[in-house]
Amino acid sequence: MRITLIGSGNVATHLGAAFKNAGHQIVQVYSPNLQNAALLAYHIKAEAIDDLQQINPNTEAFIISVKDDVIEGIAQQLAAHDKLILHTSGSTDISVLLKYNVKAGVFYPLQTFSRTKELNFWNVPLCLEGANENIFKIITELAQTVSNNVYPVNSAQRRVLHLAAVFACNFPNYLYSIAQGLLADNHLEFDMLKPLILETADKVQQQLPAAVQTGPAVRNDETTMNRHLEMLQNQPMLQQIYQLLSQGIIKMDKGTNGKA
Amino acid sequence: MRITLIGSGNVATHLGAAFKNAGHQIVQVYSPNLQNAALLAYHIKAEAIDDLQQINPNTEAFIISVKDDVIEGIAQQLAAHDKLILHTSGSTDISVLLKYNVKAGVFYPLQTFSRTKELNFWNVPLCLEGANENIFKIITELAQTVSNNVYPVNSAQRRVLHLAAVFACNFPNYLYSIAQGLLADNHLEFDMLKPLILETADKVQQQLPAAVQTGPAVRNDETTMNRHLEMLQNQPMLQQIYQLLSQGIIKMDKGTNGKA
Repeated sequence: MRITLIGSGNVATHLGAAFKNAGHQIVQVYSPNLQNAALLAYHIKAEAIDDLQQINPNTEAFIISVKDDVIEGIAQQLAAHDKLILHTSGSTDISVLLKYNVKAGVFYPLQTFSRTKELNFWNVPLCLEGANENIFKIITELAQTVSNNVYPVNSAQRRVLHLAAVFACNFPNYLYSIAQGLLADNHLEFDMLKPLILETADKVQQQLPAAVQTGPAVRNDETTMNRHLEMLQNQPMLQQIYQLLSQGIIKMDKGTNGKA
Repeated sequence: MRITLIGSGNVATHLGAAFKNAGHQIVQVYSPNLQNAALLAYHIKAEAIDDLQQINPNTEAFIISVKDDVIEGIAQQLAAHDKLILHTSGSTDISVLLKYNVKAGVFYPLQTFSRTKELNFWNVPLCLEGANENIFKIITELAQTVSNNVYPVNSAQRRVLHLAAVFACNFPNYLYSIAQGLLADNHLEFDMLKPLILETADKVQQQLPAAVQTGPAVRNDETTMNRHLEMLQNQPMLQQIYQLLSQGIIKMDKGTNGKA
């Protein structure tokens, strides 16, 4: 397939590499910053552009991977080309594209990407939505050339996935940073915690999180919780977080449905 | 080394298997519940007992892996044997053992264990403390037979590690369970989130968490955060957690020291 990437950030970089590896042709990479476009374009043998007027019409699909609030404006400008237009956003409804009467779809990779870290794209869950069955079929075939985890997901479900991803990724990462800060304050190496972080994530690959909850809160071990709160007495924000999450764990449903 | 395990829970089970594999002899396994003791003892070819009066004195070390508030009573009862006594607790001071004038040490594995999940013990960080240099040397040699990650850690540092582990393990697992519940409520498979959970943990193996923070809060994307809070309007506890952790991320120091 001939694909044009709109955007050159973390998502576009990983998507572009996966498409290129699968044998697709990346026609152009657009970014308002030509240097950013050129960096990605170089790696995937595409042309870099910084102006949507320079779009090469000899493409089959535009894939828009830009900040949510810029998607609509770009879709509007691309509509005249009458090609497939996909966005990759977790929290943007497909209707934002449909406003401009385009052949619209969503190609949302449910993963956290950093340009500096490689990952196996075959494992990335791709959540797909098409404006009609034909478009859905085309993007499903495209998705299956780069991932083994392809799911049909409508806009309402995608919003839930995006919210769940905040709880499963962004918030845990913040908690890791709190842990790292506590160690740094006490001249302890963050390396010591790394196997624990990895094992905690690995455990829930096979079992439901609620079934493997450990720690003082799930045992309702007040002595330990009070000692921890005392240790945090000069860090009221951390104290608040400790208290709220511990309350949540104490109240959580330990049944197998795992609902918090 | 001839070792007696006091306790037959998650920690004792994994420790016992690691010691056995390394060629040590497990003399006995004690649990107040004989069936639990027998289950572990069977796997590591030891004798099961449910009464501390039945202790075989032909051992070199007692390793106490029981609930924190029971450690002291057991240490007191074992003191008469005049052997090395170690506990494996993150939040119990070595002084609890020293009260009874025993050859005391701490052998704290900084990991989350489930009896039902195997793990590579060589990667488990072992945090060691000895009442004196000789004891420290003995337990360091013992630790090095089962793990490549052996650290000297005093009781004050161990308390910090234990607190940091709550933030790095127990709280993230609770957030996974919230995410799982949100998906279940919307008939979405938890499988979809598993690669994201694993990648989030994998990322911080190489980079500081604060340097790889993603999500709406770190971008201060109020539109998305407000939409998420609206989606949680019938779950005030989750709303509170979302708000507090997002505030923390907004205020966090994105510098490389990663302090929250």
